[in-house]
Amino acid sequence: MAITVVGSVAYDSIETPAGRRERCLGGAATYFSLAASFFTKVRVIAVVGEDFGRRQEAVFQARGIDTRGIEHTAGKSFFWEGSYLDNLNEAKTHNTELNVFAAFEPKIPEAYRDSEFLFLANIDPVLQRRVREQMPDVKLVAGDTMNYWIKDHRAALLEVLKGLDVLLINEAETKMLAGNSNLVQAARAVMALGPRSLVVKHGEYGATLFHKSAPRGKGPEPRPFRAPALPLEEVIDPTGAGDSFAGGFFGYLASTAAAGELTPAAFRRAMFYGSVMGSFACERFGTERLQQLTRKEIDDRFAVFRELTHLD
Amino acid sequence: MAITVVGSVAYDSIETPAGRRERCLGGAATYFSLAASFFTKVRVIAVVGEDFGRRQEAVFQARGIDTRGIEHTAGKSFFWEGSYLDNLNEAKTHNTELNVFAAFEPKIPEAYRDSEFLFLANIDPVLQRRVREQMPDVKLVAGDTMNYWIKDHRAALLEVLKGLDVLLINEAETKMLAGNSNLVQAARAVMALGPRSLVVKHGEYGATLFHKSAPRGKGPEPRPFRAPALPLEEVIDPTGAGDSFAGGFFGYLASTAAAGELTPAAFRRAMFYGSVMGSFACERFGTERLQQLTRKEIDDRFAVFRELTHLD
Repeated sequence: MAITVVGSVAYDSIETPAGRRERCLGGAATYFSLAASFFTKVRVIAVVGEDFGRRQEAVFQARGIDTRGIEHTAGKSFFWEGSYLDNLNEAKTHNTELNVFAAFEPKIPEAYRDSEFLFLANIDPVLQRRVREQMPDVKLVAGDTMNYWIKDHRAALLEVLKGLDVLLINEAETKMLAGNSNLVQAARAVMALGPRSLVVKHGEYGATLFHKSAPRGKGPEPRPFRAPALPLEEVIDPTGAGDSFAGGFFGYLASTAAAGELTPAAFRRAMFYGSVMGSFACERFGTERLQQLTRKEIDDRFAVFRELTHLD
Repeated sequence: MAITVVGSVAYDSIETPAGRRERCLGGAATYFSLAASFFTKVRVIAVVGEDFGRRQEAVFQARGIDTRGIEHTAGKSFFWEGSYLDNLNEAKTHNTELNVFAAFEPKIPEAYRDSEFLFLANIDPVLQRRVREQMPDVKLVAGDTMNYWIKDHRAALLEVLKGLDVLLINEAETKMLAGNSNLVQAARAVMALGPRSLVVKHGEYGATLFHKSAPRGKGPEPRPFRAPALPLEEVIDPTGAGDSFAGGFFGYLASTAAAGELTPAAFRRAMFYGSVMGSFACERFGTERLQQLTRKEIDDRFAVFRELTHLD
């Protein structure tokens, strides 16, 4: 089934212990859609400026991603500058320029309307909600957010959460959103805000999937599930690892939904594919590794993840 | 097969967000031997003072642990006072009194001599080495250490590491010992100092097992293996969780060694049993939970850990 994703398509300047890159192609929707494109059809909604040209467009097209929802407008594309010199697990933001995103009015192309999966990448919750409302008939909606929206735009964010099936955020964001430092208690509090399922990303320690308790008499609550991250000998650039996780996770779910039900087993495999795509994203700067990836490499790494965690 | 363990038998005063306990029975050898006793025969070598009486002895005897190697001497037992008020993952030490441990000369009872497994719990590496040298014929030797010995007693510690098959330490200690902040590179550097296998404990994120590369032509290197920790709704007291992990890990290995070879699959299951015992230790203050535990509870939780991590 096709996924429509709304989020940033951007330029990033990144510094890590492995080096520095100026203005490489980035943005949450870019990482998400590249990762998801290995599993299913992906359609992007975003806005870019005059600095986004054929070479950038070609990155999406090489992966068969539908870019008709990327609006081109006067001005400069979203720009982010950050570094990971002290801590590979947390970016230090030096500069964020919204540019053309400041006045973004998302429009859904007619050709996207039959998408059955919707991903609301990390952008202003007001924009997330507008897109959600324009696609009322989707089968499954997942989304991401960040500390900035949790702290300073809580009311708008809470409206978005009500309409989400799956929320994917990191551990610090989970605890901040819940106001609770215990992971299990925080997860329960976040799911009480809307999402039936919650994926908490732990960076180099993997991710945990929680499900909302079934109403009384509606069967047992699925237990939490923990996917590992791959111990990497060298992390070149963690930028986009979380968005790539989301792309692998949601892309796999969309691909398996076509074949049947979204079973607990499908969610568990989706967690593994998410972690697989996140591990690849870290191996090169920006989207370089995702651009060069093959489906065989993905399946081989899935097998490595299984070996890393399974008793036999 | 029987395990001999040398380490501290002590009193701990502990404060956590869940409350405070004064002078409860503790010490690395205590937690280790209680946890290991569910899997195999355990024999303790330690020293205690006049404050260690029949009630404390009974805790060991109730689990069938051989205490003939616990030397009773004039003075007070080892005492530790610490708290976890800001961070459940790291104790803040307020007071350490070596007391009778300051002049400890470990002696191995004749009845312990046929032990095939030896565990060197976290004590002065000079003492660890003396015990190791008195038991040259053991089949498998594992050990623990801590930041204090790594920083200030490195030469003595390096001598101990040469004689270890398995080292169990936490992630910060691994990186400190290696002088390398990348986990995979640090693990390799630590194993170059002696141990063929390294268990790195990540606290609430579980633990990773690394194996030394086989010499060329001697077959492939087993891949790392990651055991999860159980997401706990309430951590009452993390004291002794690492020692309980070691007890479950080494106890299971000793029990399965009797049945056959120490295969990679046995090491993987040992990692799970370690994590299971660590999770129980956190559920009550001190050794309370380990004292009340049943083998059925252990096996039930093993099944929960499998469900937490396995795809099907």
